[in-house]
Amino acid sequence: MDCFLLKCTLCNKTEVFALKGKCECGGTLLVEYDIELAARTFTKANLKQRHSSMWKYHELLPITNPNCIVSLGEGYTPLIRLNTWEQKLPLGKLYIKREEQNPTGSFKARGFSAALTLLKERGIVKAAVPSNGNAASAFAAYSGRAGIDAYVFIPQDCPYLIVEECLHYGAKTYLVDGLIHDAGAIVEAGKVEQGWFNVGTLREPGRVEGKKTMGFEIAEQLEWTLPDVIIYPTGGGSGVIGLWRAFSQLLELGLVNGEMPRIAAVQEYGCTPICDAFQETGLTVYATLPAPTGMRVPEPPDRQLVASIIRKMNGTTVTVTQAEIRAAAAATGLSGISSSPEGAATWAGMLRLCETGWIQKKDKVVLFNTSHAMKYSAGKHASHIPLIKSYQDFLDVRK
Amino acid sequence: MDCFLLKCTLCNKTEVFALKGKCECGGTLLVEYDIELAARTFTKANLKQRHSSMWKYHELLPITNPNCIVSLGEGYTPLIRLNTWEQKLPLGKLYIKREEQNPTGSFKARGFSAALTLLKERGIVKAAVPSNGNAASAFAAYSGRAGIDAYVFIPQDCPYLIVEECLHYGAKTYLVDGLIHDAGAIVEAGKVEQGWFNVGTLREPGRVEGKKTMGFEIAEQLEWTLPDVIIYPTGGGSGVIGLWRAFSQLLELGLVNGEMPRIAAVQEYGCTPICDAFQETGLTVYATLPAPTGMRVPEPPDRQLVASIIRKMNGTTVTVTQAEIRAAAAATGLSGISSSPEGAATWAGMLRLCETGWIQKKDKVVLFNTSHAMKYSAGKHASHIPLIKSYQDFLDVRK
Ligand SMILES: Cc1ncc(COP(=O)(O)O)c(C=O)c1O
Ligand SMILES: Cc1ncc(COP(=O)(O)O)c(C=O)c1O
Repeated sequence: MDCFLLKCTLCNKTEVFALKGKCECGGTLLVEYDIELAARTFTKANLKQRHSSMWKYHELLPITNPNCIVSLGEGYTPLIRLNTWEQKLPLGKLYIKREEQNPTGSFKARGFSAALTLLKERGIVKAAVPSNGNAASAFAAYSGRAGIDAYVFIPQDCPYLIVEECLHYGAKTYLVDGLIHDAGAIVEAGKVEQGWFNVGTLREPGRVEGKKTMGFEIAEQLEWTLPDVIIYPTGGGSGVIGLWRAFSQLLELGLVNGEMPRIAAVQEYGCTPICDAFQETGLTVYATLPAPTGMRVPEPPDRQLVASIIRKMNGTTVTVTQAEIRAAAAATGLSGISSSPEGAATWAGMLRLCETGWIQKKDKVVLFNTSHAMKYSAGKHASHIPLIKSYQDFLDVRK
Repeated sequence: MDCFLLKCTLCNKTEVFALKGKCECGGTLLVEYDIELAARTFTKANLKQRHSSMWKYHELLPITNPNCIVSLGEGYTPLIRLNTWEQKLPLGKLYIKREEQNPTGSFKARGFSAALTLLKERGIVKAAVPSNGNAASAFAAYSGRAGIDAYVFIPQDCPYLIVEECLHYGAKTYLVDGLIHDAGAIVEAGKVEQGWFNVGTLREPGRVEGKKTMGFEIAEQLEWTLPDVIIYPTGGGSGVIGLWRAFSQLLELGLVNGEMPRIAAVQEYGCTPICDAFQETGLTVYATLPAPTGMRVPEPPDRQLVASIIRKMNGTTVTVTQAEIRAAAAATGLSGISSSPEGAATWAGMLRLCETGWIQKKDKVVLFNTSHAMKYSAGKHASHIPLIKSYQDFLDVRK
């Protein structure tokens, strides 16, 4: 017997758990757990004894058959404190959650570990995803692990190393002359004829639940306290939904006390539908789109839900420029951390929010570095690096 | 008071702990611990309570000041079981240790976390490393974290993405017209004049000790049992030394029982000094060198020590070809695991050792995937991937 249901975030109706993401009324469906039942074993002492993996939080993940778990070693990524920056900014405490250390180099591993587990439990053998890239490669890897036939559809300007990853994991890979929603339209057009299960954003309950584990982990890593501020790079928005669910559930369980963290959703100048929905400005129209990153999602499936969560969390939104993102990536690099444009955007967002005073001197802040810098590399050549043969050459090239 | 010393592996003399790697007699120095003292707190129950990081094993790491630990979230990488392959090969149990999930995408993070901690404890401000690439980028990141000025010297054919990593972490980066030992000669030539501390292989005690934690982890992850077989891609050989030390210390502490695992050191056809030393054939001379990987170390600093350890572990050596490595990388990719040429070499080695019967049906085998496939990507372009605009295009390109 399943001990979970689906509940609509719009009309509040509950229904039997199934692999669907949308209610009849058009609202987004999220998983509803029996929290009292979970509370019996989801305790600090028990959790401390379990292996470090996102699956240690299994009571609050929608699986029924632990034998079907499709795992490649996702979750329990490090949370690194950057002491030297705290004084400079200033703020209370600064942490980076190193999500790029997940399998496939991004936080997307979590969502697909959960989603592919659900697909495998139900015997699904063929699935497809429209993606900006990281979701595609994570889906490709977990499908390979699960023995499920994978089709991925990604914008043609997707960084090539990510395309290569999809191929390496054996996914049938298509570049789309268009954006992520155009890729989504192709999957929808073909899903009946091809027998694809569509694992796109908010199409099934697994991906949000998998992402939720990021929130559980930071609470556990901070010795069961919550940070004051979370900064998150936002595209489709399911990361924000997942984090909100994590903190809500931990508060409900009494595992943490105090205030819900304030979330700042960061987007890049040129594509800011979540910022626009939060600020109720109507959609800002920009002359050019930003670079292909996970934040470039012009038509997120449920921007109203994401905006309402940001409000519930006393949050805000920030728009950063490509130049700010570049400078931020350089700054984290010099501290030894490889951050993707999305991760660097959270750093840039933090700088802005320190300036405006939204982040204060006492705040404990967590940035999410959602992917690895290398995935976005152009793979240029080395002609600008000094080539030497002897110590004398070393001395010569430095002159 | 330090509770450790250095001991020579050749003349057995002990001396005061210092940042050196070589005894007066020419032998390699390794750290000697007070095992009885460590045993008081290095217990299964204590270890279970600690955060997942290589630093949980601090009693058997040569640090005196925990405040100096230079950490970026290294260690406690996943150990993934590949059930579906066990029957096919056949063998008892097959695991891959996903070392590519470390910071900087390789197991080198462990060694440099330990080494930079030692350097920082002693106030060293400038250091240099000769490397095939992964050591350089790990060194660059940990130096950035520690605030130490880093110089890296790498062969000019090093994969460009690794070169780019070194730059991203702010290391002064030089390409050497030659091999890793030529890079080493440059560091030695300049170290007095430039004030570089040389963090090259077996030059100081930290790197071997850091790598040792891989052995502690697999024992703990296998519920305090040892595998029968370890397959390790070998270059300088400090990984083999580290694993041997880990298992020896666990056996001495009584935390595990039974036999020392048999180790198989894998090298690539074209550069096999460790295989040659083990087989006592004299150095095989090849017409061409293999591709630039961490296994390409024509002049390892102490091949006799490495060969003697392989013998003590009832081990063996295997030489694999580039074609076998490529096929192996494709095979692990289809199981959802991104493996570098070095990691793939262990897979290729395993296939060989299953064929020859050295690995048997009952054996529990652990492969080490020491780095990430992506680091070696050429970063080509996407002209060979189908480009589509509609579901109809999808149908058309498949014809
Ligand atoms: C690296 C990275 N960061 C952030 C995001 C945005 O996440 P979400 O869709 O949860 O808003 C994505 C999505 O593609 C991504 O790939
Ligand atoms: C990915 C990788 N694997 C294996 C090795 C070889 O390791 P060791 O020097 O410990 O023999 C290296 C060393 O450069 C490496 O980079």
